[in-house]
Amino acid sequence: MTTTAEGPPVGFGRMTRKEDARFVRGHGTYVDDVRLPGMLHGAVLRSPLAHARIVSIDTSAAEAHPKVKAVITGETLAGLGLAWMPTISYDTQAVLATDKVRFQGQEVAFVVAEDRYAARDALELIDVEYEPLPPVPDARRALDPDAPVIRDDKEHQSDNHIFDWSAGDKDRTDEVFAGADVVVAQDMLYPRVHPAPLETCGTVADMDAITGKLTVWSTTQAPHAHRTLYAMVAGIPEHKIRIISPDIGGGFGNKVGIYPGYVCAVVGSIVTGKPVKWTEDRSENLMSTSFARDYHMHGEIAATRDGRIRGLRVHVIADHGAFNATAQPTQFPAGFFGVFTGSYDLAAAHCTVTGVYTNKAPGGVAYACSFRVTEAVYLVERMVDVLAAELGLDPAELRMRNLLRPGQFPYQTQTGWEYDSGDYPRALQLAMDIAHYEDLRREQAEKRERGELMGIGVSFFTEAVGAGPRKHMDILGLGMADGAELRVHPTGKAVLRISVQSQGQGHETTFAQIVAEELGIPPEDVEVVHGDTDQTPFGLGTYGSRSTPVSGAAAAMVARKVRERAKIVASAMLEVSPDDLEWEKGRWFVTGDPDQGRTMAEIALAAHSTLELPEGVEGHLDASCVYNPPNLTFPFGAYICVTDVDADTGQVKVRRFIAVDDCGNRINPTIVEGQVHGGLADGVGMALMQVIAFDEDGNCLGGSFMDYLLPTSMECPSWELGETVTPSPHHPIGAKGVGESATVGSPPAVVNAVVDALKPLGVRHVDMPLTPAAVWRAAQGRPLRTDLAIT
Amino acid sequence: MTTTAEGPPVGFGRMTRKEDARFVRGHGTYVDDVRLPGMLHGAVLRSPLAHARIVSIDTSAAEAHPKVKAVITGETLAGLGLAWMPTISYDTQAVLATDKVRFQGQEVAFVVAEDRYAARDALELIDVEYEPLPPVPDARRALDPDAPVIRDDKEHQSDNHIFDWSAGDKDRTDEVFAGADVVVAQDMLYPRVHPAPLETCGTVADMDAITGKLTVWSTTQAPHAHRTLYAMVAGIPEHKIRIISPDIGGGFGNKVGIYPGYVCAVVGSIVTGKPVKWTEDRSENLMSTSFARDYHMHGEIAATRDGRIRGLRVHVIADHGAFNATAQPTQFPAGFFGVFTGSYDLAAAHCTVTGVYTNKAPGGVAYACSFRVTEAVYLVERMVDVLAAELGLDPAELRMRNLLRPGQFPYQTQTGWEYDSGDYPRALQLAMDIAHYEDLRREQAEKRERGELMGIGVSFFTEAVGAGPRKHMDILGLGMADGAELRVHPTGKAVLRISVQSQGQGHETTFAQIVAEELGIPPEDVEVVHGDTDQTPFGLGTYGSRSTPVSGAAAAMVARKVRERAKIVASAMLEVSPDDLEWEKGRWFVTGDPDQGRTMAEIALAAHSTLELPEGVEGHLDASCVYNPPNLTFPFGAYICVTDVDADTGQVKVRRFIAVDDCGNRINPTIVEGQVHGGLADGVGMALMQVIAFDEDGNCLGGSFMDYLLPTSMECPSWELGETVTPSPHHPIGAKGVGESATVGSPPAVVNAVVDALKPLGVRHVDMPLTPAAVWRAAQGRPLRTDLAIT
Repeated sequence: MTTTAEGPPVGFGRMTRKEDARFVRGHGTYVDDVRLPGMLHGAVLRSPLAHARIVSIDTSAAEAHPKVKAVITGETLAGLGLAWMPTISYDTQAVLATDKVRFQGQEVAFVVAEDRYAARDALELIDVEYEPLPPVPDARRALDPDAPVIRDDKEHQSDNHIFDWSAGDKDRTDEVFAGADVVVAQDMLYPRVHPAPLETCGTVADMDAITGKLTVWSTTQAPHAHRTLYAMVAGIPEHKIRIISPDIGGGFGNKVGIYPGYVCAVVGSIVTGKPVKWTEDRSENLMSTSFARDYHMHGEIAATRDGRIRGLRVHVIADHGAFNATAQPTQFPAGFFGVFTGSYDLAAAHCTVTGVYTNKAPGGVAYACSFRVTEAVYLVERMVDVLAAELGLDPAELRMRNLLRPGQFPYQTQTGWEYDSGDYPRALQLAMDIAHYEDLRREQAEKRERGELMGIGVSFFTEAVGAGPRKHMDILGLGMADGAELRVHPTGKAVLRISVQSQGQGHETTFAQIVAEELGIPPEDVEVVHGDTDQTPFGLGTYGSRSTPVSGAAAAMVARKVRERAKIVASAMLEVSPDDLEWEKGRWFVTGDPDQGRTMAEIALAAHSTLELPEGVEGHLDASCVYNPPNLTFPFGAYICVTDVDADTGQVKVRRFIAVDDCGNRINPTIVEGQVHGGLADGVGMALMQVIAFDEDGNCLGGSFMDYLLPTSMECPSWELGETVTPSPHHPIGAKGVGESATVGSPPAVVNAVVDALKPLGVRHVDMPLTPAAVWRAAQGRPLRTDLAIT
Repeated sequence: MTTTAEGPPVGFGRMTRKEDARFVRGHGTYVDDVRLPGMLHGAVLRSPLAHARIVSIDTSAAEAHPKVKAVITGETLAGLGLAWMPTISYDTQAVLATDKVRFQGQEVAFVVAEDRYAARDALELIDVEYEPLPPVPDARRALDPDAPVIRDDKEHQSDNHIFDWSAGDKDRTDEVFAGADVVVAQDMLYPRVHPAPLETCGTVADMDAITGKLTVWSTTQAPHAHRTLYAMVAGIPEHKIRIISPDIGGGFGNKVGIYPGYVCAVVGSIVTGKPVKWTEDRSENLMSTSFARDYHMHGEIAATRDGRIRGLRVHVIADHGAFNATAQPTQFPAGFFGVFTGSYDLAAAHCTVTGVYTNKAPGGVAYACSFRVTEAVYLVERMVDVLAAELGLDPAELRMRNLLRPGQFPYQTQTGWEYDSGDYPRALQLAMDIAHYEDLRREQAEKRERGELMGIGVSFFTEAVGAGPRKHMDILGLGMADGAELRVHPTGKAVLRISVQSQGQGHETTFAQIVAEELGIPPEDVEVVHGDTDQTPFGLGTYGSRSTPVSGAAAAMVARKVRERAKIVASAMLEVSPDDLEWEKGRWFVTGDPDQGRTMAEIALAAHSTLELPEGVEGHLDASCVYNPPNLTFPFGAYICVTDVDADTGQVKVRRFIAVDDCGNRINPTIVEGQVHGGLADGVGMALMQVIAFDEDGNCLGGSFMDYLLPTSMECPSWELGETVTPSPHHPIGAKGVGESATVGSPPAVVNAVVDALKPLGVRHVDMPLTPAAVWRAAQGRPLRTDLAIT
């Protein structure tokens, strides 16, 4: 709360989400709901092979289909200079394959027809002759010197190696390890998973041949960046492009990049002169759009015998698939594992990451995390538990001994980050209090006596969110500043335009509350406009929990600008100096004479009236702001998971889950809790059931929700939430992002709990997902191969 | 030209209108082109009588029609508090009549049906019982003490008198007249005319019951003012209202106000839950929407014997119809006839205006003029010719002797206006040169010898345009400031959002040129967004030739703000102080080192990049501006018309028309000339053929284009245009408005020419329109009654 007035805040607090009226009544408008007169429908022909040379493509039969309007191949696109497109990780990606296919499900041709059925039918009429090549679906094998080169399209690319990245001080770290009492090491895999939003990806493209204006409704988390990219790549003038991101049914990072289908829909509209819709089916979404994780990690931790963690050493082989599509370490100067040092007070740390091409769909999507925090936190929190087991210490106690202390903030990490604020022990203590931690340990001990497998998992995480500041990251050279524009109409009602948009996070409510709080008007009086590049200022989009940290700051600051403008207008109305005015919720009044005041509505009308304003003061009551975050925000949390494991079946039951989150000031606690609930479920899913696996030939084994399992309420306990509030000192309203915290923090808590349950059986680690089979085999002392990507 | 760089301007100059591609190919989108799913159609039941008490309205049969969804009466509206609405002249107007009808064509009921045909059919099923009252269609008779009171709905209204207004110094004027050598007087009528845009008025209203958002596509010249009005009157929150003024087929003042049909469509959508379209037919537009003029004027002019004009005395009876609907004198402190003193150097002037209610459709619309300039200029320019005839002086010579001189500017009129700039004699001289005036007079003399009726008419006018500054006028308390917002995208393309919108004036081109000129980029790189309250900043709309004077100034100033922001970014890129940078078209470069520079496109990309900017400088390259005009602008011109009159038939042939306009700097001369061409044709039409007449019972005699004649190319000569350029000193680009100049200046030129032709027959004045019958009768010495409104 930063408002200076007394009394409860106007804007902040629990309120029902403004957008829910339309969602619960089925009146949301998603991309696939868009229907335009004369609209055609597109379908993508995909490669059945993971690696093959394209010998020929015969489209004649498809073109002869009576309902087919166009068949587009890589050759068509090459004529437009669009066969390849840049990715936001400075790689290039085939839009439609011309030379060879590099993963199963890769886009080969695009059919535009009168309806979706005809388009699908016509795909069968396209005759593609493939010459199979040896597939390389495994990242470690891809690094073999004699492995087939997947990206032979790239000049100077004679192997499958993409990059080496490192962070931290190697010499210092080696020194610390050399002098350590105890060193433990563990290999672990963070398996390939998929964000799997309920709404798949899709686009409706409408190129108006007369005005030259391209309108694109698209499932995108970053409409402005897409607009700039279309302009740069396709040569369509940027001011003639409108990207609309309407209601979006979940993103989780899946909708940050541009997929070939988007481009094909645009080209389809250009060549046919009609609007073209393309919507993925579930299988296409799961098999062909960007994956996340797929990290083969080796961790080492050095400590004193009495449980003081001294150093951390990490090596990662990162599987990026056939194209390096989305956020990856090297593009951020302090990126990736910037937070691999976790929440602990280390003497030294060092990390290396090797990026690798494989014959799999592009990976690297920041699935509900920024900067690979999810992988980093998982690694560290597993390692801490391995160390605890080695030292015979309670995992909570070991963490408590090593957590950063409040006095250490702002804290400079070993890798150049500055954590803004925190009171970590308080959060962990609160989680332990809610859990009745000691009682739980007692219960566990009793059960172990009886041979029952009960586990208690603890995790602590520090998230790095806000996708800023500029010096830390960019997308294709675009910085991380976000704009906000606020108009207050003559009757005092406000419209806020923001550059981020919602995929379900409730922006229309949260951002209305931010403005309401600053202007002292009801949130109902603030309309939030988002998701339309024609209507909103530039910004980099919604991902990495950056909406509140960046755009939320812009919203608060633009409202403060309006409040200051209102002060000038009020001073003209009251014929006093602005210096003689004081603010109380929604009203400027004369110091010492509270009856002499003007409400925001009165001021708004006057600002649009014939009132004479001082020289140089413009009329109306609008303002704009571009917020360039000086730093990221660092929310954090302490999670405790309680599981019961059935040794006979391997079944894991998550009995309790305590989550204490600190995301600074909470604008709408109900929405924050909703975000946490979703993330916790997500984490339980990743820990227990989710994996996109491939066979040795690169065939994807997770192409449907029968294979790729998502958690339901059956797998989730009734969440027990707690909160501490440590405002971010550099954020105007002291808020931090919270959209991904629970996804980051919950998988290690669950895995730690299961491994803790299996501890009496001598189990030290089990790789995710902890399916009944994996748990049962671990309990039998015969763990599954850890490279689950090649099940 | 205000750009400091050398070389030809980037933006200004002739270019084809950007909007024409869609117009000439039939792809404009007018209100009636809007079709929404489930849309219903409305139709208005209108009164057949000019004055009658409503005894009863029976809608049961209409409601029983199978395709009818709702029948709305004044009673329905009364329940919503919407039976009456405020007009922008501080009167109230019945939306649907409840107590009585006050003009023929007044709105009585509104039917909403599945299609337009059913809605029209159902009108016939509504049974209204009227009790006829004596109609009062004549303004002078309406002032009789015993005339029936038309507005008995208004408290304290015991007669038909609305207001008395006066301007100037009466005593001083009487003194000047008392001492004058010569005084001439003349009664004249400016008949009731109608703007008659090719597109009639209409609305599509769509109230979304779930979001509470009202979207209105409407034929409006002032979408933001309409939004505020809907909010204030209907209680719909202003941020939940979107008014879209799409392509508009002409306005000319006809589309400034809110007509009952608009409100009925909105209410129709609210009660049915469906979108409702209402579109007038031609007859409804001509009979029921606002009229213009209808001024009974008495003028007196005092002069010295040698032709020095000393004083002007004017009395007007202004017929406002049944409701005082749009712009009228009393609402502007210095309004109406603010310019009734014309372009001459007077010693004194005085004017009185009496406003009167009559049983006619609401009048008072500012048809292609602001502040009644059209009427004022007509009066003065006719009076000068009457004086010239009296003195035996050439009308051009008499004007030349009395025009204001360049050294007199800025010139304070007798009525409180400040004319900004001008060189009047130069403009008149140029017109005379183009016309070869002396040759024409010689030709006329020769023809008169032969009994042929040739006339030469001269007129000079000063227009007052810009509908500002604040102190001079408002609409319902709203001031005349206009906003502009400019966004420059990362690739350097620009989007300008303005508050005014086009009804055909070519804003998309002109405003792109203004921005292009200031930023040094091609006009093709600037997209202009207008006509949508959701997308544009607040402003008072397009009328009174105010687009360029007000919004054009805002556009230039917002572009200059962006240019200054670009300077800061360029200085960061070049690592020099901003003070070391110079501007040349589209580029900031280092003083003394011209190779070190950055183009706008380079700067735009950098402004959106990770470039570090100085403390306090926000990123991106957007800006907004609200322009509050310090004064009106005063374009002017000298017109000469040459006519041949057939004494036997009364037929007038406009043989030549010379128009010299000075509107300051011209942004796009082609568009300026198009505006002048249209206005000249309009003036010829008003002079020769246009009139909305009524019979004694108040029946409108001009309800179709068979009765209300518009000029075609057959009636127009090939216009001969000239220009002088006297920039407005207070306007950022030195421009003045030009949209209405020709409509103001041309009628007196034509009438003066015809009267001049008839001079040998002893004719001193003929009232408009100069139809063959009127001219023939004047030539016979038997002029038509001048109160043509009651033909």
